[in-house]
Amino acid sequence: MTTEASAAGPPLDREAFVARLREEGERRYHDRHPMHVRMHAGKLSREQIQAWVLNRFYYQTRIPIKDAIILSKSDSPAFRRMWMHRIVDHDGAQEGEGGLAQWLRLAEGVGLDVDEVKSLRRVLPQVRFACDAYVQLVRERPLVEAVASSLTEFFSPDIMAKRIVAWETHYPWVAEATLAYFRGRVTRARRDSHEAIDYVLEHATTREVQERCVDALITKTDILWALLDAVDRAHPDEVAG
Amino acid sequence: MTTEASAAGPPLDREAFVARLREEGERRYHDRHPMHVRMHAGKLSREQIQAWVLNRFYYQTRIPIKDAIILSKSDSPAFRRMWMHRIVDHDGAQEGEGGLAQWLRLAEGVGLDVDEVKSLRRVLPQVRFACDAYVQLVRERPLVEAVASSLTEFFSPDIMAKRIVAWETHYPWVAEATLAYFRGRVTRARRDSHEAIDYVLEHATTREVQERCVDALITKTDILWALLDAVDRAHPDEVAG
Repeated sequence: MTTEASAAGPPLDREAFVARLREEGERRYHDRHPMHVRMHAGKLSREQIQAWVLNRFYYQTRIPIKDAIILSKSDSPAFRRMWMHRIVDHDGAQEGEGGLAQWLRLAEGVGLDVDEVKSLRRVLPQVRFACDAYVQLVRERPLVEAVASSLTEFFSPDIMAKRIVAWETHYPWVAEATLAYFRGRVTRARRDSHEAIDYVLEHATTREVQERCVDALITKTDILWALLDAVDRAHPDEVAG
Repeated sequence: MTTEASAAGPPLDREAFVARLREEGERRYHDRHPMHVRMHAGKLSREQIQAWVLNRFYYQTRIPIKDAIILSKSDSPAFRRMWMHRIVDHDGAQEGEGGLAQWLRLAEGVGLDVDEVKSLRRVLPQVRFACDAYVQLVRERPLVEAVASSLTEFFSPDIMAKRIVAWETHYPWVAEATLAYFRGRVTRARRDSHEAIDYVLEHATTREVQERCVDALITKTDILWALLDAVDRAHPDEVAG
């Protein structure tokens, strides 16, 4: 996506850079994916909802791993102190707490066998490839680009707020209490995206690095999109015979 | 160090494996290094003490990085919850707290310029190579071996307790309050080594893996030894002319 032409020239000012990140991210964000649109419109079957929850759990398990890699790339105690809470958010301060445990309660809420979900046995290969590519991106790229890849958090508070309403409306068979993960993400993703964008604005000081940050964000949207593509293809709508 | 012969055969039982780790680690631990012996006997000059503190700071800065890499190698929220406090121990819960800040106060206590220490400009190349080799070992080896490399903590509570007495006795020009890092490590290293050995005992279940864990611990002692060697060679005793 990064062209020689766009990477040349002076750096964008803060406002223009944020606008560019938002624009490139927003138009590729997975809320535009056909399966996601159908999810929020109440068109998914129980089996499709289950397949999404089961496969997306693999993505969730990769998040603390990629955040630990991000920690390990920083020389700054201040940065590490700021970033560390992300790992605690997912792992919890103790057993049964945190985002991963909440996601497993969601899995139970949609009628899945929690042990099978935890085993990751039924995760689609394409979903693994996409999520592993996210971990690999963070491992291989410089810290500022790894941080930029997390900026899909710009868009997730809105999507989470909409998702809660959509699920409560269209999938009443899912117990409301099991939607706690989505609820927690509304405020957490907002705080996280502020921390991340501040870091990116401070450290992406050339046009070339700015464009590599945009590229990292685009790759991240590709990853989220590929996850939905894989689930959608493996669990198509049933055609009325 | 691992020979084909020793790696064959049934796994050592817990007691024999712990004994082997302790034996191989203990006889190579850096408290036997000539410079370390001279340090605790009160034979080092102010300039030699300063050189050790300045160079050892580079080692300290690598610790949270290698611990974040260890976090990123684990799929288990329970393991990550257990290991995470190591990063907090070094980085602190806020600015000015934690082991790195304590080490900088020690640097000030021995009369070094703290900003110069933080800049890492005067760190000896051989010290960098050794400490970077530690990070690389943790990055490249399986989790259980990375954890085993931390088992020098078996020996550090004793050495820290002795060091506090030695420094108070022989280097009274170092303000007692600046020895807080050594004091904190007595109990922290004891807790950390228990967590680490429990993990290694549970996961090193074949003789081959047990020997690779011993090898990781030996490499770690080589790293600590190399650090002292480099400082010793660059700052030899002054020969009375």
